[in-house]
Amino acid sequence: MNQYSQRLTRLRQAMTAAGCHAMLISEPTNIRYLSGFGGSSAYLLVTASEQFLITDYRYVQRAGEDCPDYQTYCRDRVSESLGQAVGRLLSHTPNASLYLDYRHLSVELYLTLQSDLPMMELKPAPLLVEDLRAIKEPAERACIERCILIAEQSLDWLLGRIEVGMTEARAAELLNNKMMELGAQGQAFPTILLSGPRSALPHGQPGDRKLCRGDWLLIDFGAQLKGLRCDITRTFVLGKASDEQRRFYQTVARAQQAAIDMVRAGVSGHQINRTASDILAASPYAAYAGEGIGHSFGLSLHEPPLLRRSCETLLQSGMILTIEPGLYRPGFGGVRIEDDILVQDQGSLSLTRFNKDLMEI
Amino acid sequence: MNQYSQRLTRLRQAMTAAGCHAMLISEPTNIRYLSGFGGSSAYLLVTASEQFLITDYRYVQRAGEDCPDYQTYCRDRVSESLGQAVGRLLSHTPNASLYLDYRHLSVELYLTLQSDLPMMELKPAPLLVEDLRAIKEPAERACIERCILIAEQSLDWLLGRIEVGMTEARAAELLNNKMMELGAQGQAFPTILLSGPRSALPHGQPGDRKLCRGDWLLIDFGAQLKGLRCDITRTFVLGKASDEQRRFYQTVARAQQAAIDMVRAGVSGHQINRTASDILAASPYAAYAGEGIGHSFGLSLHEPPLLRRSCETLLQSGMILTIEPGLYRPGFGGVRIEDDILVQDQGSLSLTRFNKDLMEI
Repeated sequence: MNQYSQRLTRLRQAMTAAGCHAMLISEPTNIRYLSGFGGSSAYLLVTASEQFLITDYRYVQRAGEDCPDYQTYCRDRVSESLGQAVGRLLSHTPNASLYLDYRHLSVELYLTLQSDLPMMELKPAPLLVEDLRAIKEPAERACIERCILIAEQSLDWLLGRIEVGMTEARAAELLNNKMMELGAQGQAFPTILLSGPRSALPHGQPGDRKLCRGDWLLIDFGAQLKGLRCDITRTFVLGKASDEQRRFYQTVARAQQAAIDMVRAGVSGHQINRTASDILAASPYAAYAGEGIGHSFGLSLHEPPLLRRSCETLLQSGMILTIEPGLYRPGFGGVRIEDDILVQDQGSLSLTRFNKDLMEI
Repeated sequence: MNQYSQRLTRLRQAMTAAGCHAMLISEPTNIRYLSGFGGSSAYLLVTASEQFLITDYRYVQRAGEDCPDYQTYCRDRVSESLGQAVGRLLSHTPNASLYLDYRHLSVELYLTLQSDLPMMELKPAPLLVEDLRAIKEPAERACIERCILIAEQSLDWLLGRIEVGMTEARAAELLNNKMMELGAQGQAFPTILLSGPRSALPHGQPGDRKLCRGDWLLIDFGAQLKGLRCDITRTFVLGKASDEQRRFYQTVARAQQAAIDMVRAGVSGHQINRTASDILAASPYAAYAGEGIGHSFGLSLHEPPLLRRSCETLLQSGMILTIEPGLYRPGFGGVRIEDDILVQDQGSLSLTRFNKDLMEI
């Protein structure tokens, strides 16, 4: 059995357990995960006994080649709505409930499905595909580890070349090019490389600011390979760190290590969040604490579970999560330290190995 | 007045004409167009007299810097829903209708807005921002022309380096690297470069297939700069074209030229579509005709109007559209020819200049 038919089998088990008879999968990354289809215009319709890939003439040949596990249904988008196609494919069970991804389905499409499928009850689908995606298969973990290796080697190389006067944008370009040279197929996301007070922008873009002595340098980046990725942050000081910079950095480092030490199967997302948040909140820098502590990632950059205050999800062995508390103090700067952590039954394993002591570069 | 306040003024005029009091803008590219905000988590709320950018702590500093025309509203996502924030900001007009983008808003968010704003009537917003975006400003047109120059110079360079035995993926990589070297900030979309029978995949990805003598070579690509882009396709023959290849190519070329000759302000999208479709349908290759004939583009690759059979939109001066009919014959190959055409009052101007005669390379 190939990867996709194994995933389909696991999805069917979860559908049966959740009482879902028919599920329409519309989110492109879930479609890719379940079928291998990489185009931009398709839907999967999965029932207990059948699976269809619904697309149009532009993708029908590719779908047939890439997704042999699915029956391809080619729809003329002008003359047949998605709802009509679904109705035709499910005509032997016209009164079934149809489970939809309410988080990604547009209101427009939902309203047309409602009017085109008057006999069917539309319901929000539980996050079954997301649950499958959260547990990384051995091949996925190996690919993520390869991304980490590329990213860490590239960062190490960059630190030897960074110098005062270089712009953020140029430093980011060097890092990105190095990742490609070492075999990345792209960036995990647009590299964040911010200096000085700009490091306090949790999601800023590298700009024309030139690096100065004494600056913070925050680098949040990752490599991408076969759709999978890593997500790493390190924060450095250019030249000699001040005492205040050291205290600020150590606060984040302590919060991050405490959160990592909490990670193991059975612990909830909010426990991890609280462990880090409590340390930041008890510090002199409480007012500058960021809110998110980490997240899962894989084919997307942010995947559930998101380690927010409200996260009830219990961690499971095989999940890979970022742990990334941060402090962001306007005018002074920001520090974030982020590792990629594999959840195990009895603890965890950090897949990232890059030094985390405050480095003066 | 800067670009963004001018766009906001035009949006307000359109809102008044359409009777929209308050509009919640959720589509990221529309947000970028109206405010310059480039982050991934924000909403714009525009009324007749006020405009807010609703975001959270991660983006609040950046929003303040990048979007001085907007009042930034920082929401704690855990304790305040989007609907609650909107309700607070519109508390002086609690019974107004709120216009939403049903094409992009998720069902999940829509249902929470419904429950959090019980006094407000939620309505589908007309495509006012899309209408503004369709007419390119002089600076936008200049940027698109720069993208075209980069793309055409890169393609010209590539043709001197392509050779039998090279893989599709390698040829695409050379083209992409050349565009970056010439100043592109990225690809307009992942370059499509397909050879031989694979050229019949309208949206395939470059693969490991090696180029052979006599192959079709279809290249659909573009450069990206400041978020704007171009979109160009040329199809070549490697070595000497067969008579059948010539007939096939000329059929597409005639359909494309006839469609371009139709373009001027006041003509409808379906007239353009029919002009090209009729020529393909009357040819011996009718069964292989693709369905779409072109589309507008800009900050996104596909923007309305889409030149489908059903497109009622009348073209307006200042729109820039692709004209790209194609024939896709499984086992034999595909031909697509695509130019970027500026709509004018009395006709049109092709912004792309690359040779369209069948080239044997």
